[in-house]
Amino acid sequence: MIDFTPTPEQLALKQRVEQFIRRRIIPFESDLRIGPHGPRDDLRIELNTLARHEGLLAPQVDTRYGGMGLSHVDRAIVFEAAGYSLLGPISMHCAAPDEGNMHLLEAVATSAQKERWLCPLATAKVRSCFAMTEPAPGAGADPRQLVTVARYEADHYVVTGVKWLITGAQGAAFTIVMANVVDGPNGTGPTMFLADMNTPGLRIERIMDSLDQSFIGGHAQLTFNQVRIPADQVLGAVGEGLRYAQVRLAPARLTHCMRWLGAAQRANDIASTHAGRRTAFGKPIGEHEGVSFMLADNEVDLHLSRLATWHVAWLLDRGDRAGRQSSMAKLAVSEALYRVADRCVQVLGGLGLTRDTVVERIFRELRAFRIYDGPSEVHRWSIGRAAVKAAREAE
Amino acid sequence: MIDFTPTPEQLALKQRVEQFIRRRIIPFESDLRIGPHGPRDDLRIELNTLARHEGLLAPQVDTRYGGMGLSHVDRAIVFEAAGYSLLGPISMHCAAPDEGNMHLLEAVATSAQKERWLCPLATAKVRSCFAMTEPAPGAGADPRQLVTVARYEADHYVVTGVKWLITGAQGAAFTIVMANVVDGPNGTGPTMFLADMNTPGLRIERIMDSLDQSFIGGHAQLTFNQVRIPADQVLGAVGEGLRYAQVRLAPARLTHCMRWLGAAQRANDIASTHAGRRTAFGKPIGEHEGVSFMLADNEVDLHLSRLATWHVAWLLDRGDRAGRQSSMAKLAVSEALYRVADRCVQVLGGLGLTRDTVVERIFRELRAFRIYDGPSEVHRWSIGRAAVKAAREAE
Amino acid sequence: MIDFTPTPEQLALKQRVEQFIRRRIIPFESDLRIGPHGPRDDLRIELNTLARHEGLLAPQVDTRYGGMGLSHVDRAIVFEAAGYSLLGPISMHCAAPDEGNMHLLEAVATSAQKERWLCPLATAKVRSCFAMTEPAPGAGADPRQLVTVARYEADHYVVTGVKWLITGAQGAAFTIVMANVVDGPNGTGPTMFLADMNTPGLRIERIMDSLDQSFIGGHAQLTFNQVRIPADQVLGAVGEGLRYAQVRLAPARLTHCMRWLGAAQRANDIASTHAGRRTAFGKPIGEHEGVSFMLADNEVDLHLSRLATWHVAWLLDRGDRAGRQSSMAKLAVSEALYRVADRCVQVLGGLGLTRDTVVERIFRELRAFRIYDGPSEVHRWSIGRAAVKAAREAE
Amino acid sequence: MIDFTPTPEQLALKQRVEQFIRRRIIPFESDLRIGPHGPRDDLRIELNTLARHEGLLAPQVDTRYGGMGLSHVDRAIVFEAAGYSLLGPISMHCAAPDEGNMHLLEAVATSAQKERWLCPLATAKVRSCFAMTEPAPGAGADPRQLVTVARYEADHYVVTGVKWLITGAQGAAFTIVMANVVDGPNGTGPTMFLADMNTPGLRIERIMDSLDQSFIGGHAQLTFNQVRIPADQVLGAVGEGLRYAQVRLAPARLTHCMRWLGAAQRANDIASTHAGRRTAFGKPIGEHEGVSFMLADNEVDLHLSRLATWHVAWLLDRGDRAGRQSSMAKLAVSEALYRVADRCVQVLGGLGLTRDTVVERIFRELRAFRIYDGPSEVHRWSIGRAAVKAAREAE
Repeated sequence: MIDFTPTPEQLALKQRVEQFIRRRIIPFESDLRIGPHGPRDDLRIELNTLARHEGLLAPQVDTRYGGMGLSHVDRAIVFEAAGYSLLGPISMHCAAPDEGNMHLLEAVATSAQKERWLCPLATAKVRSCFAMTEPAPGAGADPRQLVTVARYEADHYVVTGVKWLITGAQGAAFTIVMANVVDGPNGTGPTMFLADMNTPGLRIERIMDSLDQSFIGGHAQLTFNQVRIPADQVLGAVGEGLRYAQVRLAPARLTHCMRWLGAAQRANDIASTHAGRRTAFGKPIGEHEGVSFMLADNEVDLHLSRLATWHVAWLLDRGDRAGRQSSMAKLAVSEALYRVADRCVQVLGGLGLTRDTVVERIFRELRAFRIYDGPSEVHRWSIGRAAVKAAREAE
Repeated sequence: MIDFTPTPEQLALKQRVEQFIRRRIIPFESDLRIGPHGPRDDLRIELNTLARHEGLLAPQVDTRYGGMGLSHVDRAIVFEAAGYSLLGPISMHCAAPDEGNMHLLEAVATSAQKERWLCPLATAKVRSCFAMTEPAPGAGADPRQLVTVARYEADHYVVTGVKWLITGAQGAAFTIVMANVVDGPNGTGPTMFLADMNTPGLRIERIMDSLDQSFIGGHAQLTFNQVRIPADQVLGAVGEGLRYAQVRLAPARLTHCMRWLGAAQRANDIASTHAGRRTAFGKPIGEHEGVSFMLADNEVDLHLSRLATWHVAWLLDRGDRAGRQSSMAKLAVSEALYRVADRCVQVLGGLGLTRDTVVERIFRELRAFRIYDGPSEVHRWSIGRAAVKAAREAE
Repeated sequence: MIDFTPTPEQLALKQRVEQFIRRRIIPFESDLRIGPHGPRDDLRIELNTLARHEGLLAPQVDTRYGGMGLSHVDRAIVFEAAGYSLLGPISMHCAAPDEGNMHLLEAVATSAQKERWLCPLATAKVRSCFAMTEPAPGAGADPRQLVTVARYEADHYVVTGVKWLITGAQGAAFTIVMANVVDGPNGTGPTMFLADMNTPGLRIERIMDSLDQSFIGGHAQLTFNQVRIPADQVLGAVGEGLRYAQVRLAPARLTHCMRWLGAAQRANDIASTHAGRRTAFGKPIGEHEGVSFMLADNEVDLHLSRLATWHVAWLLDRGDRAGRQSSMAKLAVSEALYRVADRCVQVLGGLGLTRDTVVERIFRELRAFRIYDGPSEVHRWSIGRAAVKAAREAE
Repeated sequence: MIDFTPTPEQLALKQRVEQFIRRRIIPFESDLRIGPHGPRDDLRIELNTLARHEGLLAPQVDTRYGGMGLSHVDRAIVFEAAGYSLLGPISMHCAAPDEGNMHLLEAVATSAQKERWLCPLATAKVRSCFAMTEPAPGAGADPRQLVTVARYEADHYVVTGVKWLITGAQGAAFTIVMANVVDGPNGTGPTMFLADMNTPGLRIERIMDSLDQSFIGGHAQLTFNQVRIPADQVLGAVGEGLRYAQVRLAPARLTHCMRWLGAAQRANDIASTHAGRRTAFGKPIGEHEGVSFMLADNEVDLHLSRLATWHVAWLLDRGDRAGRQSSMAKLAVSEALYRVADRCVQVLGGLGLTRDTVVERIFRELRAFRIYDGPSEVHRWSIGRAAVKAAREAE
């Protein structure tokens, strides 16, 4: 039955998270350990400790690994509350890319792999990264352009290639890396591997300066120079890498929607408060329609983004892969939340351009969100193609 | 618990309505009795008869008047299916303004009034209209500018004024009219009256030519020249007219969202089918991103419109007045569905400008929907004002 | 030297046209001879007579045919003034499709052809049409999909095919028709022919109902059933039809920009006046930013549209074909003027949906303008392709 | 006569500047002396020296101060070419705020003031700043909210207040500061003063972190604590400060349009080149309409921005104050160029978010441009108000 009522448990947990974020995490937002590539790892550990004490660490993780085993709808509610601070998801260990990696490892890894990589990750002992994207002419919006190669050699795969825009590589303990297996006994094709970051031949070339700055470790360029990875570190099956990327992607992009919804809500709260206080031309700017209409559009964009996110979460909880629906949600939500952030900057005026409020940071992050996990154009392409196909089949 | 699953009963009813519309109603769309002011009344009666035979007449009406007593969420599902044809809501007697009038009469009228006006209306024996809007400088977007006057005289109110854009007046048996009571024993202020259309002094001056053309009877200009209305035809209490207008408005604008969602879905189906067939520059136009991206944006707009509509329907079912939420839904849905219709015209190209498909008609209707039941600007104004107020109170 | 000053002659002519339109033409706007397919021909003749008496008939035509031989920049100024009434360009005989046909005949026709077809056309003795567009799967946005065929037979071409959306066919004396020559002594390929409308086998099947309604004769569907056209009625050379279509198109789409600029200016004047008078919520609606911001955006859109139009006119006067620039202008101007008309409807509210003002008509026309003479998507496609090509060549 | 041809001298100068920027300035873009608050002053001096050697320093300045005395239209052409690098206007000493200050000093300062402040500024010996904006509740979008006070005392004015978002204060030799004179022999009201930055009581509190980062010195917060300014350092007349602000503003916001047009053109060139090279889904992304349509819209936005800028420059050269027209240009150009930059980021995808290209920087700058020199909303407000007023007067 159609129902938009969160359960009492969801509401209680939401409230706990909201208070945790406001009281314990937001005060850290001006911590000097936060730089252009996110918070330093010592700050991250400090924040994780706070969340652990509150019982709020890694709530999405299965209880067997110490999490709360939240459903997707639960997450929609909790992650939004966490996202109210850019430090929130980091503190609660439900930020990208670790969150998506945990999901993928739970779904695909062997028991031994889980023991070795998922356990320490799930408990925030370590961080991880996900190395798929490559510079031109490699895998970008189109993952099939993968050029990183893995050759089989004595029960190992030897990986060579360049990856970039690899979020969180700096400081990660291990990576999941995608490479194209070209030979070997178990088949060929795009394949995921687990590799410790200190494996010989794996090097962080540089941290890229970027518009968005909240992800811990920033975005790195990595070189894989003949990196030997034991065959038992293949994640899942050889040749199934692109399929697993989809397994990871649909929920991962949805959790981005959840977290950024919280951030956009924060920006809107700041802008709305400002609009009620700051005066111009004889009254508070919030009484000028030029401003209040922007706030009205924000209300609508936030509300619809929430509904769209809940809807996909509900689908995922039912076991639906929700590929098309999560694509629609990512497209709609990323663009709507960006508009919200953009309007908040505008409402704040000159102040909105400065770091005196967190709105400037949120604006940067949301600009980036229109690109990663599939730029809007790739989603439009796939949604549009499906629409035409469906219309043909209906004839 | 958050849930987006319609009940089996809702799904079954939806399917019945869909089939009824496709098989029985759509064939009438090219009936020559449809003119620039909607279908003629004899066609309307014919369509009502079809719906009555299917048990689909006035499904929103209480069972005591022969309806199905549908909840708001039920309506969201059923009215969308009805709206798939511009004739659908007319046939099922769930179109504006009758639908809103029935709702208002159920809520406010006395037993005697219900007997006299609601019974024949609920069973589609007659039609009705709602006379609130006035030409400048009277009541338009701002209902408090009401200039039509009612003076008390010997147990009657004598109403004088001009109303325009009165949908469905031509052919209606009675009207609900708003006038400003200036004296009399029961107080003063904006007041609603029930008046038969043949009351002396009440005259239809003209039917206005308008961009939208689907409403039966079109939009009329009415003169009230010393129209004597017995005091027992006051609807509700004297001075409460503006409040009742709100009672009528929130659900009425939501049912518009429901019906137009069906119409926009129809336009999108036609455009998607066309895009899969029509070729240009070497392939079906639906394989050009310039077209398929428009279809993708349609998918998103339709989906979010549906979610927003369901959400308010759910609120109304819980007894929430949902003033702010229905305002947000009306704003978001009317603009989204208009974009859908506009893109459908564009996808169809020259064909889209002609009446060879129903898309041209749907486009007109949706342009109008951005204005009636509160133009977007009035909704933005009230939503924005509430947002600033809420921010102030949160401080 | 960069200069935006019209010459004194241009300003004087502009003023003459403005006064002519306001005093002599606008009063005819409510003439009952104007129907859903434009004004009747007797009204057209009456209006032409008025313009002829004022010396304002066919100002764009060469003086040898009785016109003023205006330059393109002259036209930009004069046609905008003419466009202030939807009847203006018709009265001055500078409306589509005649205006473009005259241009094409001047450029391509033989002396004998000019004598026979251009002379009576240039003096408004007759009207003409241009038959290129075909229903699916024929020539639409992509003219190379031409399916109408011309077979050579005894010094004639026998043309068979269907054309639709042929503006002004009803009442025209002759047409320029595009057909694909498949054999014969003078080559093959897409070719233009001159054909009197009463040629046997040429039939107007129907006038299509359409959203736009200002073009005289409306938009027709024509059947060419073995229509025998003498070989000396080939316009220009066999096989050059697509090239001539371009010759006609660039200036033709620019004159659309000019005329519709005048119409949009008219709509904006009406909306601005209304905004200064109509009150809501305590003050004139034009003092609500929600309204005044729309008017501000109109000012910008009108201004930029004028500059873009002047710029291409100046290019054409220099002998530049201005293919890419006229494409950019058509795209930008059609979308900007449509936004203007859409905002005007919104500013007028319910009134804007009715035919009580001319804004409703202008809105319809401008919706159509986003499609004919190349839908926005086709222009974006060609401009974008040229941009990528230029970037490659610059490397 | 309407003409869009630059003079040969303009074209030659444009070419010189283009080559200077490409050959001499762009190589400095990765100079490590460029930080979050623009280039360091030693780099600025080095770049000024290069421009001086090329005879390209301060081209807008009167020849008596060593400039070229360029007209506004000349500037439109030259500043666009300079803006092709974010360092270009700095190198040529035609960047904000110095450029506007020079303009204002030329227009308003006494001979002695010019000798003391304009001469060294015009020759780039020193830099300057303009201290008008204040934190809430002071002068922001509404300059009449000025709270900085100047009290008369013994032939001095004693200024007290806080200014922020003061561009270039760090490293400036002097400032023009706006304060409200509350007493004294020469009248009262908002007044501009010239003050050396080392005047006692004038302190730079901090440099604000901001989204835009190209302005030299960044944006500072200044405290004026009983700063004694001799009465002969009043700029112009007491009480005329707001009027002078307008004198400065109209051309200043137009030169912003010019410079940012060059920057947006640069971003577009980079994106177009990328689109021709980078592949996805089987072809260069520039052959996907999803990308090429963005580039097409860029072409249109750049073209219209150029026309709008030229038009106001031409008005200013004619002696027109062009208040309304420069407001329209600022609104239209800032929003159009921002769209261009935003699309360029999107075309570049992940790369566009990084500092691997200059597009990321240009994007930030253009976001800020929608706010400074009047946020879009303030321009819409004034343009809309003028439109309603004009409509009333036309009645």
